[in-house]
Amino acid sequence: MYDISYDQLEKAKANVKTNLEKLSNEGLLRGTIPADKAFSAVNVTTSLKDALDEAVYVQESTLESVDHKKKIFAEMDALVGENTVLGSSTSTIPASQFTENLVHRRNCLVVHPVNPPLYLPLTEIVPAPWTSQEAVEKVRDIMKSIGQEPVCLKKEILGFAVNRLQFALLAEAWRLVSDDVLSPSDVDKVMSAGLGPRYAFKGPFATIHMNANGVMDYCDRYMAGVKRVLADLGPIPTFEEPQALKEIDTSLTAEMPLDKLNEHKAQREKNLAALMQLKKSKQ
Amino acid sequence: MYDISYDQLEKAKANVKTNLEKLSNEGLLRGTIPADKAFSAVNVTTSLKDALDEAVYVQESTLESVDHKKKIFAEMDALVGENTVLGSSTSTIPASQFTENLVHRRNCLVVHPVNPPLYLPLTEIVPAPWTSQEAVEKVRDIMKSIGQEPVCLKKEILGFAVNRLQFALLAEAWRLVSDDVLSPSDVDKVMSAGLGPRYAFKGPFATIHMNANGVMDYCDRYMAGVKRVLADLGPIPTFEEPQALKEIDTSLTAEMPLDKLNEHKAQREKNLAALMQLKKSKQ
Repeated sequence: MYDISYDQLEKAKANVKTNLEKLSNEGLLRGTIPADKAFSAVNVTTSLKDALDEAVYVQESTLESVDHKKKIFAEMDALVGENTVLGSSTSTIPASQFTENLVHRRNCLVVHPVNPPLYLPLTEIVPAPWTSQEAVEKVRDIMKSIGQEPVCLKKEILGFAVNRLQFALLAEAWRLVSDDVLSPSDVDKVMSAGLGPRYAFKGPFATIHMNANGVMDYCDRYMAGVKRVLADLGPIPTFEEPQALKEIDTSLTAEMPLDKLNEHKAQREKNLAALMQLKKSKQ
Repeated sequence: MYDISYDQLEKAKANVKTNLEKLSNEGLLRGTIPADKAFSAVNVTTSLKDALDEAVYVQESTLESVDHKKKIFAEMDALVGENTVLGSSTSTIPASQFTENLVHRRNCLVVHPVNPPLYLPLTEIVPAPWTSQEAVEKVRDIMKSIGQEPVCLKKEILGFAVNRLQFALLAEAWRLVSDDVLSPSDVDKVMSAGLGPRYAFKGPFATIHMNANGVMDYCDRYMAGVKRVLADLGPIPTFEEPQALKEIDTSLTAEMPLDKLNEHKAQREKNLAALMQLKKSKQ
């Protein structure tokens, strides 16, 4: 691990230790290496040169800003050879925006984990137009070998896949409140007590395949109705509709006051840990 | 239970018994009545008049067709008094389309459970423009008392809430394949290994509240980016794009061949039962 601050590195290392032990105790350690052995392989340095020496793969996780990404990728580009793949954790910035002028740009790409990464195995791999297929495949193999579940986008796209799907849903959730159809807590309940448990195991295509006699049967029987509903969805919300914004904020701060938010986040991690244990036991 | 066929009633009754025992064995029986006592309260009849005698609440579950709904609701309307609420299980037909001319139309509404209803507690309550607030509240109280999780739509809307949210997501899932960004199985994985486990516990509003320091903070920091992504989503798919349709069908039938679909549905029920046990233990 590299950082400009030795204090940060010490904190990060302690954090890695805690999390490895937590995952180990929960039976959720991914990959094949025991926690203590994994931890003993973690070294820290404030020298980027040392950190990159013979590196096979780098996971960059600096601030979410194009300027920061540009700076650190240029520094890494000057130090690495031909065989190091450079992945960025960014959730929003395509790799083309910070790797275009690099010597090793064919080894650069986005490798985006999902929050909270300790419990969710999904990883989005997003190449820039100049990223080599070898780099994509190398990252995919590494991610699989450590127990992540990678998906490979074939090209760059704004928001990648996670946020495009998430925001499409959020837009309709918001409209249901701003059009005064449902309360914010009822919208959340539609997911948590209805659609969410299904999506915890199966995605949207598998769902329609199972909700009919296969996807072709679903299309024949239901897609005309699906299109009518889609045509009825409203325009993109401004997300500033004052009544909706106030209603959503009031409802959420009553359910999860800001000074208790960390407790709710901890509870979310516990719930996800239990769900991941369940999914593991079903494999 | 009423049906025109006594054979169907016997089959349905046997089905109720099996399901009550299954839920009881899984520790997932809802409400407060033991399975055997609940089952002993189930009576069957081929006389609609007898079925409706002193009925407090009726759950109509006939074929998904306006004509069938119109016919059975007109028959019930002629037999009930002022105190019976008539709920329809329809997932797509607003109550206004089959109750407008009824004497007791203020007692009619949609009460839509979610597939598979044995394990998902969500119930959408959707009034017609003439449905009384008393009828809505009565149904909501009944649903709560039997362990369902009702949400109350304040007005009729095409697709209700479940399908509007589900189809908004499906549309973007489909575009990701038809725009050649992701394979169908990778789209499904984005949900099942990433967004889905989160939605199993918390809906879209709770998620953005927790992914920042509350929803107002999320709006300040991220909504400009959310809107840019939403503006980039494509038009409503035709769901007939030949390449996408073929790719999705090929992928799904390889993963879940049609002749094994019932096994996958049974596995889905087992997964959902385990998840519901987990959620129950967390309460």
